[in-house]
Amino acid sequence: MHFAEPLPLRSGAALRDYTLAYETYGTLNADKSNAVLVCHALNASHHVAGTYEGQAKSEGWWDNLVGPGKPLDTHRFFVIGVNNPGSCFGSTGPMNDNPDSDRLYGADFPVVTVEDWVDAQARLLDRLGITQLAAVLGGSLGGMQALSWSLRYPERLRHCIAVATAPNLSAQNIAFNEVARRAIITDPEFHGGHFYAHGVVPKRGLRVARMIGHITYLSDDSMEAKFGRNLKGAQPAYSTQDIEFEIESYLRYQGDKFSEYFDANTYLLITRALDYFDPARDHGGDLSAAFAGAQCKYQLVSFTTDWRFAPERSREIVKALLDNRFDVSYAEIDAPHGHDAFLLDDPRYHAVLKACFDNIAKEQP
Amino acid sequence: MHFAEPLPLRSGAALRDYTLAYETYGTLNADKSNAVLVCHALNASHHVAGTYEGQAKSEGWWDNLVGPGKPLDTHRFFVIGVNNPGSCFGSTGPMNDNPDSDRLYGADFPVVTVEDWVDAQARLLDRLGITQLAAVLGGSLGGMQALSWSLRYPERLRHCIAVATAPNLSAQNIAFNEVARRAIITDPEFHGGHFYAHGVVPKRGLRVARMIGHITYLSDDSMEAKFGRNLKGAQPAYSTQDIEFEIESYLRYQGDKFSEYFDANTYLLITRALDYFDPARDHGGDLSAAFAGAQCKYQLVSFTTDWRFAPERSREIVKALLDNRFDVSYAEIDAPHGHDAFLLDDPRYHAVLKACFDNIAKEQP
Repeated sequence: MHFAEPLPLRSGAALRDYTLAYETYGTLNADKSNAVLVCHALNASHHVAGTYEGQAKSEGWWDNLVGPGKPLDTHRFFVIGVNNPGSCFGSTGPMNDNPDSDRLYGADFPVVTVEDWVDAQARLLDRLGITQLAAVLGGSLGGMQALSWSLRYPERLRHCIAVATAPNLSAQNIAFNEVARRAIITDPEFHGGHFYAHGVVPKRGLRVARMIGHITYLSDDSMEAKFGRNLKGAQPAYSTQDIEFEIESYLRYQGDKFSEYFDANTYLLITRALDYFDPARDHGGDLSAAFAGAQCKYQLVSFTTDWRFAPERSREIVKALLDNRFDVSYAEIDAPHGHDAFLLDDPRYHAVLKACFDNIAKEQP
Repeated sequence: MHFAEPLPLRSGAALRDYTLAYETYGTLNADKSNAVLVCHALNASHHVAGTYEGQAKSEGWWDNLVGPGKPLDTHRFFVIGVNNPGSCFGSTGPMNDNPDSDRLYGADFPVVTVEDWVDAQARLLDRLGITQLAAVLGGSLGGMQALSWSLRYPERLRHCIAVATAPNLSAQNIAFNEVARRAIITDPEFHGGHFYAHGVVPKRGLRVARMIGHITYLSDDSMEAKFGRNLKGAQPAYSTQDIEFEIESYLRYQGDKFSEYFDANTYLLITRALDYFDPARDHGGDLSAAFAGAQCKYQLVSFTTDWRFAPERSREIVKALLDNRFDVSYAEIDAPHGHDAFLLDDPRYHAVLKACFDNIAKEQP
């Protein structure tokens, strides 16, 4: 969907003449009351569910949750996935032409925030003729978008479902983002963010960034269970540069794969959007005050072994919502997989979301 | 101290014609029974205590603990600090001439292990005429050396004092080391470890490595208390590449400083020594069996907020020692500073070590 009207951004800049890639699943009902928006996190896109014809391994990133007969049942709901501006999977981003210069955006793509994405998503819904969403659903950075929806457009959603998320990043969260960014920015092939013109990609930086990210997505326990101290060979090779332990092999593989398809400028933009999200900031740090104008019902979910966005962070949100006497349900799922758990098919987790959507389907808007 | 006889290494290789830098504090008594060896961790040296005349800010790395009237009192004990081979602070390391080639060692420096270091330290003691140590003390990687002493030379020490350490690295610990190593190795200025000949230093990689390390040395809480989400400026600048948060400024400063003085090959060697340490490995993973031959008394210390080497890891060691009915004392110190706490002047922590050394001083060997 193309948008000719500029999108004003929180930074004071604007994004003009942009396109949003989106997909929908299921059928919008007559009174347009069954729409559910699914917001993506760092490394995902509008392709939430289903597979592309003739393309093996093209399952959507939340295909275990979204589809016919699944917890978010596309027989009942009209599900919308939209790629955020600044991303590298179809919507306007750093790899596109910069209308204000004669080169690609690169590092000149304006800094986008969670709030800006929510505004862009709201415009897409305007075009689709959807006044009010049955729900907005997201995990991690997607959960921040769901929370932001309830603050920016309180009358436009009935339910906010935020999984494995936080009211803002901690200093440690920002620190991990910053190291990953430094790895990318100091890669000589980054060329100040205009590497496209040089025909190169800062793969070294992207690899390191992804390896750091992966460590924070997995729990200590699940890494221990999956890899432990297993050697790649039968005996130690006593090398500083070669792969010695299985965990090293896994991380290098993840880093290599990521560096083949992910855009370096997008990585910077999306981690910055994470850093900046902080709805309490405009209310003197008072999260309860930040939520005062919300109107929807909330479902929060966290995972016990998630040390990136630990349960305590979800409880901060729950407390702020309860301070406002909102309708809140909170599930803390005992799962071993760390932050990644929000993408996995954990039966207790999916049962919570299924019950939530079953209740939403029964409601009369 | 120069050693002409080759040091056989665990890898099967040998280190020949090497020098160890060491310092001593206090006076060795007549029966040579009051010597305490202090083992260093990743980023330290033989310069444990005191200051160099005319050099401001030249305090030894454990000066708050070691000195006249301090918990490890140099009026009573003869304290020895020794720089391990492979390090970059005076002992033979990657920056020295390789006797087997016409260039510096660089990446050809043999892989050294905790056990190799302990053997090198034992030879130094031979030269100093010290048959038995009153104690071996170390924190983190230094604690691993203290534990290894009690296994390799059980009759040569009366006390093993191991602080903030672990019986081996977890998969997550190895993962962090590996990301740091990849940042260094993939820095184009690393030149396969022979960057000296090119007149360059892989500073980008060293910076990223140090930033990652720093995150794991500090607790989430102390980072939150010290930096939180404080901005560097009054308002967000909305930039992906400039410093926005104070934590970023701190990490970049630490990374820059480190890259000015630390050797990249040493970083690889020392993190590998950490990875390889695993005394239970030769005993089918049975840590209790690994300690069966030990003879000394043990003092273990851990810190509640240390998530690099958490208290549970120390408790694994305590359990293995108790399985052998050894004399073990264990203190779990409630301190906010994460892994770094072992280097700080926490009153409860220092009181534990003071009591420990007071008791050792009273003993008749």
